[in-house]
Amino acid sequence: MADVWEAYRDELGGVEDRVRKNLDSSVTLVNTVAAHILNSGGKRIRPLLLVLSARLCGYGGRDHHQLSSLVEFIHTATLLHDDVIDDADLRRGHRTARKVWGNQISILVGDYLYSKAMAQIVEFRSQGINEVLAEACTKMAEGEVLQLYCNGNPTMPEADYLKIVEHKTAGLIAASCRMGGIIADAPEDRLDALFRFGQYVGIAFQVADDTLDYTADGARLGKTLGQDLRQGKATLPLLHLLKHCSEGDRQMIKDRMETRTLTESDLSRLIHLMEEMGSIAYAMERAQAFVLAAQRELGLFEDCTAKRALMVAADYMVTRDR
Amino acid sequence: MADVWEAYRDELGGVEDRVRKNLDSSVTLVNTVAAHILNSGGKRIRPLLLVLSARLCGYGGRDHHQLSSLVEFIHTATLLHDDVIDDADLRRGHRTARKVWGNQISILVGDYLYSKAMAQIVEFRSQGINEVLAEACTKMAEGEVLQLYCNGNPTMPEADYLKIVEHKTAGLIAASCRMGGIIADAPEDRLDALFRFGQYVGIAFQVADDTLDYTADGARLGKTLGQDLRQGKATLPLLHLLKHCSEGDRQMIKDRMETRTLTESDLSRLIHLMEEMGSIAYAMERAQAFVLAAQRELGLFEDCTAKRALMVAADYMVTRDR
Repeated sequence: MADVWEAYRDELGGVEDRVRKNLDSSVTLVNTVAAHILNSGGKRIRPLLLVLSARLCGYGGRDHHQLSSLVEFIHTATLLHDDVIDDADLRRGHRTARKVWGNQISILVGDYLYSKAMAQIVEFRSQGINEVLAEACTKMAEGEVLQLYCNGNPTMPEADYLKIVEHKTAGLIAASCRMGGIIADAPEDRLDALFRFGQYVGIAFQVADDTLDYTADGARLGKTLGQDLRQGKATLPLLHLLKHCSEGDRQMIKDRMETRTLTESDLSRLIHLMEEMGSIAYAMERAQAFVLAAQRELGLFEDCTAKRALMVAADYMVTRDR
Repeated sequence: MADVWEAYRDELGGVEDRVRKNLDSSVTLVNTVAAHILNSGGKRIRPLLLVLSARLCGYGGRDHHQLSSLVEFIHTATLLHDDVIDDADLRRGHRTARKVWGNQISILVGDYLYSKAMAQIVEFRSQGINEVLAEACTKMAEGEVLQLYCNGNPTMPEADYLKIVEHKTAGLIAASCRMGGIIADAPEDRLDALFRFGQYVGIAFQVADDTLDYTADGARLGKTLGQDLRQGKATLPLLHLLKHCSEGDRQMIKDRMETRTLTESDLSRLIHLMEEMGSIAYAMERAQAFVLAAQRELGLFEDCTAKRALMVAADYMVTRDR
């Protein structure tokens, strides 16, 4: 993956330029807060996938930098709201905007980034782009509500979990890939393939991310393990464990989800159980299967640098060091 | 104004139908929360102005009902977020969504309503509508941030207060009027006149609303008087008073803005001072002047039922019983 980042460094530099230029609110505080989170070390995965999708479809222009920066604005808007909803104090090792400026400012600057992105996106005058992006944003909000609604429910069906993941995470990634194809004027079947590629990749990404919440790799990457459970969120490895553990352990987990407390010894036991029951392996295999499904979608594209980079990027979704 | 509501009852009924039909999220809770606030007795001022503007420009179709309902969705999204930001428990005598379902749901359903509106608005395939609406939304968010930023500042210039009002309230009303003209295919000079009409009317509306925070009329309409000051918000009547009262009273007001406390006797004194110094009269005169400016903008339209209704609606902005 390092080679991919290196090969597309100039492209992503172009995206960064646009991110900076688009932070032009007449209200200075808006720019300050937005810059704080935009520059907090996000990997720009959506811009990368949009750029690669555009190149895969033979795009030779430079509009994809602006479009990518606007997708990152939208993604950033959701992070600002997520941090308020999750009461999060840290993001990628930095204090969250809500911790620095408060919940109110975080909500409003999120609203601003989203509106600003939509305002600039309509300037592309592309019905396809307008539609796919607005649809993705609607799905994201629905996914977040659904997640909150399912919160604390240890008997949530796996299908509901996957629906949440598809809505809240995969939708915008799928839209990014499709938009790369749209600005390259690719035919409908290729746009559909790119959309599905993004959808599978997005699901894989989120499933792997949720699994890192219970693994040594997650700890190494700076995650506070067990955080999802402390917020009452049942994710794939936990749902697997709940189906396969003893009644006593099930009650313990239900209790912790309800009380939103998890001691270090609870967590150790949980991780031990997950390893014993194969819950971590199960979740990672599911993530891996989504990566393969994504890669299959690229079958109708001829071999080229961008295609190889997308194949690598898909693998990276479940192995990356975040 | 009662005659106007009566004359356009069928039109507004058409808008209500669209509001109901657009609440079709697959996530039931989204519909429940959205319906709670959408049916809480709002006056549908933006839909009315959009409908009247369309008719004024000779529009004979029915798309304006759908467009109006989407503007109401956007307005409702901002109310959901405002109630979180203001910690509000009541809106129009009903419990706020945040009080019933919590801040998290309110933020997310606000995001949903906004995205959903944008997703349906792009289906109009009108570049003009996309642009004016996205621009209005960006300005609204900026206005809210600016308001928060200026919070607690008793020496805010009147120009800053008017900038906040123009951004957070007048922008969407101006956009509604312009969009009425756009779907009627009105020429650019009429669109501009409608936009300015909406802008002046919107400023008048907010200035009058802010003034009701300190008057017996406000109390009669169910307002908790002095609420703006308790939230640290300096509005036009207060800014006027601060300029004209004694140093002792100025210190008292500054102190109350800082500590966000206001006893009944503080409030009585404040209202008494405002009457003595003519602060209420000053603010209402300013609001009235904006109404006149709005009405002047209609000069280039020939006399007709819709024009007369808009003239009445403009007056209503500063006299209405909310």
